[in-house]
Amino acid sequence: MLDSIPTPDGADRPLILFANDDGIDARGLHALVAAFDGMGDLVVVAPFEEQSAVGHSITIRDPMRVHTWPFEGASGPVWARAVTGTPADCVKIACQRLLPRHPDLVMSGINHGPNTAVNVIYSGTVSAATEACILGIPSIAVSHAEWRPTDFTAAGHAARRLGERVLADGLPDGILLNVNVPGGAPEDIAGTRITRQARARWNEAFEERRDPTDRPYYWLGGEFVDLDEGTDTDLQAIRDGYVSVTPLQIDLTAHQHLSRFADWV
Amino acid sequence: MLDSIPTPDGADRPLILFANDDGIDARGLHALVAAFDGMGDLVVVAPFEEQSAVGHSITIRDPMRVHTWPFEGASGPVWARAVTGTPADCVKIACQRLLPRHPDLVMSGINHGPNTAVNVIYSGTVSAATEACILGIPSIAVSHAEWRPTDFTAAGHAARRLGERVLADGLPDGILLNVNVPGGAPEDIAGTRITRQARARWNEAFEERRDPTDRPYYWLGGEFVDLDEGTDTDLQAIRDGYVSVTPLQIDLTAHQHLSRFADWV
Repeated sequence: MLDSIPTPDGADRPLILFANDDGIDARGLHALVAAFDGMGDLVVVAPFEEQSAVGHSITIRDPMRVHTWPFEGASGPVWARAVTGTPADCVKIACQRLLPRHPDLVMSGINHGPNTAVNVIYSGTVSAATEACILGIPSIAVSHAEWRPTDFTAAGHAARRLGERVLADGLPDGILLNVNVPGGAPEDIAGTRITRQARARWNEAFEERRDPTDRPYYWLGGEFVDLDEGTDTDLQAIRDGYVSVTPLQIDLTAHQHLSRFADWV
Repeated sequence: MLDSIPTPDGADRPLILFANDDGIDARGLHALVAAFDGMGDLVVVAPFEEQSAVGHSITIRDPMRVHTWPFEGASGPVWARAVTGTPADCVKIACQRLLPRHPDLVMSGINHGPNTAVNVIYSGTVSAATEACILGIPSIAVSHAEWRPTDFTAAGHAARRLGERVLADGLPDGILLNVNVPGGAPEDIAGTRITRQARARWNEAFEERRDPTDRPYYWLGGEFVDLDEGTDTDLQAIRDGYVSVTPLQIDLTAHQHLSRFADWV
């Protein structure tokens, strides 16, 4: 394992930070790092344990541990740390404590499962990219839009292509990209669409079970419902076999509705 | 303690659900419920333990427990449940399992501390209101903008006034309100402003300490920096002694930037 970053203080190679929410040993993260082979100094700061659905959680009531971690990239060992925290924690501690300078790009993923529509709000994968955006660093969240992905090749290709574009052109202030890639081989991908989040909802069923002492407990389950008939959504792009690229904003203010409330003061 | 909701199947009294992130025994939650005394059927579903900074985390890898809880409102016992989960979990399980019908209004808070600017993204208080909005229920997050609030009276008054308005007029689809109330007595409040989130950032310092076996661990700390010089922000309203009301949207798509990416496909 690598104990120090190859070119700690600059050089003209981009420094690219990788994070995720499935944990540092997840196949999707390894596929993402491999896809960026040769593009610069690649570093990994990812959760020690799986952190799906943590949303933009951060750890303020407990301390965190940072473990040096063996991580094999396509061309050899990659500098990597496993953090006992959330995806947002990983990006915070990487950028503000562990790395010698701010990364030029933060890539989060490849998530095992879609982060489309309302799932963006629950997503730990997106939150790592959101945290980078808050810190002023261009970032992309990448998800494989199948629940049990087998082949990350197409998602890796899309991630690299978009990562190169972001390194070249940057992103507007306060904007990150949320990318979802359909299943199948790279040659099966129909193309790329710029999309918006679909309106959707989970119809949750909380299943009640009984423990051995007959006391109830509840498991969250449910059914995902697409409420949107638009053809320009992330969900429709995936259904049509396209890579979905949704620009997201970190400003949650409903600017278009501010005037509606003028007489509420 | 109340074991059943006073008017389980309708009547023409509004059903108002209260949640928070400081935990079911927090003073701010009790002050919020007391402020709504007499307005309808008041029910509480709140976290068993403090859940600050959990963002929009939901519990999918563990089951949840639901405990009947003694909760005293201004006019007597209030139906209440403590859930071993996050603020978003509380709203989900309340609306989709515990309550006899959807509430007419969800109130979250009163948070002990501000939820302004970028803190909205980390806030468990806001996430409870966000979850209600996803479910199609009008909702308001209320925070006391002092870190060690002593008097919740002004925040309770503001919450009730805005809650009454929302019950009367509703809210646009996909929009919730984020309310911050400055310190001081009700007569010290200068008024109410409709605001946008300020641009701001935490300059984090991760303090390294050593455990008894000399291994390092890290505490998140840091300094909040307002990067916004606008006079129409939530932070400025609080500084000027006004109640800040920010409409937030659950659609994170950066619609105004979609066309910029047209040639990225």
